[in-house]
Amino acid sequence: MTTSTTGGAAGQVTVLGLGDMGSAIARTFVERGLRTTVWNRTAAKSAPLVAAGATAATTPAEAVAASPLVVVCLLDGTAVDEVLAAVGTAIAGKVLVNVTSGSPAQARANERWANERGAQYVDGKVMGDPPDVGKPHIMFPFSGSRAAYEAHEPTLRLLGGVAYYGEDAGAAAVEFMAQVAMGFEMLIGFLHTLKLVRAEGVDVAAFAERFAGSLSGYPPLLTSMAEAIKTGDYGPDLGSLNVQAALMDDLISHRESVGVEAVRMREVKTLMDHRIKAGHGEQGFSSLFELLGK
Amino acid sequence: MTTSTTGGAAGQVTVLGLGDMGSAIARTFVERGLRTTVWNRTAAKSAPLVAAGATAATTPAEAVAASPLVVVCLLDGTAVDEVLAAVGTAIAGKVLVNVTSGSPAQARANERWANERGAQYVDGKVMGDPPDVGKPHIMFPFSGSRAAYEAHEPTLRLLGGVAYYGEDAGAAAVEFMAQVAMGFEMLIGFLHTLKLVRAEGVDVAAFAERFAGSLSGYPPLLTSMAEAIKTGDYGPDLGSLNVQAALMDDLISHRESVGVEAVRMREVKTLMDHRIKAGHGEQGFSSLFELLGK
Repeated sequence: MTTSTTGGAAGQVTVLGLGDMGSAIARTFVERGLRTTVWNRTAAKSAPLVAAGATAATTPAEAVAASPLVVVCLLDGTAVDEVLAAVGTAIAGKVLVNVTSGSPAQARANERWANERGAQYVDGKVMGDPPDVGKPHIMFPFSGSRAAYEAHEPTLRLLGGVAYYGEDAGAAAVEFMAQVAMGFEMLIGFLHTLKLVRAEGVDVAAFAERFAGSLSGYPPLLTSMAEAIKTGDYGPDLGSLNVQAALMDDLISHRESVGVEAVRMREVKTLMDHRIKAGHGEQGFSSLFELLGK
Repeated sequence: MTTSTTGGAAGQVTVLGLGDMGSAIARTFVERGLRTTVWNRTAAKSAPLVAAGATAATTPAEAVAASPLVVVCLLDGTAVDEVLAAVGTAIAGKVLVNVTSGSPAQARANERWANERGAQYVDGKVMGDPPDVGKPHIMFPFSGSRAAYEAHEPTLRLLGGVAYYGEDAGAAAVEFMAQVAMGFEMLIGFLHTLKLVRAEGVDVAAFAERFAGSLSGYPPLLTSMAEAIKTGDYGPDLGSLNVQAALMDDLISHRESVGVEAVRMREVKTLMDHRIKAGHGEQGFSSLFELLGK
């Protein structure tokens, strides 16, 4: 925990990848006084950071050699593989923190790559947008080497909120994948719902305000549903499936009558029908979990 | 606005349909001191309400004749049609408040039926569960005859929170359909996400707590997305589509690698690809709205 206070080598960091997010990360380090080395495939991206005080390296290996802590932020896993191949053995003895988006499997493969070359690996994900870097409400889940994470946590905290999810290098990606997928599920459902709202002549912005207001009622429902799934004790949340299923037919025919797709609603209805047929009509929505993936 | 304070005829109400919700409504009226007449196809459902002080009628027409305000709460629109056919001309001069779930079109058809027989019609929907009736957090959106709604609002307020959405009898159903569909979209996405979380060995209840916590970040995003859709001015919410699309491939391959479906994620990716191909890759997620239903 001494890295951010001793200065010298501990105050040095390298950032590989200067897209919007990588640039925001490098800029935050520069502004917080770290000796920051940057590299990007397209060298022009370095110019504003060099103007702010960073040092530009001409190759990934040269950039990695400059600092004990190497933060990688690229477009995707393919880009990471290409850049790490160019880094090669220069990674030995370093801590590699990779915040590129990617799967748990990619994170675990990157860790193996680093460990085989004598480096420690920490995987990270970014839950927020580039302009939020350095502010408290952006979240960075991390996982992988606990020793490496703890040694550099003060530096990583400069970027925003941080949380450590354990030694499995894939754990941060699992959290990110699940949270982001949940967000996309909600947001694409929201767009379809706004289509329905507009088709019925209702103001989409006014409806969005009302739905945003009703979101505050969901946390207790979500946690009680997860608890029911964990215990297998399915009470009639949202009412019994027998009653809910009758409602789904109305929802589906209404959506389709105004030209809005009902893919999820049809799926829900099919699952409800299966549960009811199997004698579970008095249970609630969360019991549909039992049928997923079957 | 005098109905709840003058007693006598104004303090009389009829409830048709004594399922879980109808029974909760009738019981609330009885407990608040209204002279309550009830009817149900299966007469046995009346017994506990009669024990509490209600009067049971033997036919829908007899029940309707007993009160100026008739609240209908049945399983679905088909049941409403059947019961109203049995009510027939007894509805003349009454206010019919139908809180059965159903579509905007059904609400408008019910209004025509009532008006043709000399009755006023108010459509309502129930956003909450039977045990919540009579408490402030259950919500009843209403629409239809403003005069009838205003005359009986104090009585309807006994049931929970109320809101009036205008003279279009279908408006309450539109609000209900949109809010409920949005809820189901989120909740089925939540179940699939919990499947992913469990497949990766993460505790579903702990994840649910974390996602419930992150829900508080969504209202500003939802309202700004609706505003972008309203104006057609699509900024890069959630980052540009170019960056988001790269992430979707990871999300899809990860979900499918652990046996979780990716129907919505594949849809989102296809929409993003279309927008990018059309030259809108610098816009954000909300711009996908332009492609829905096409």
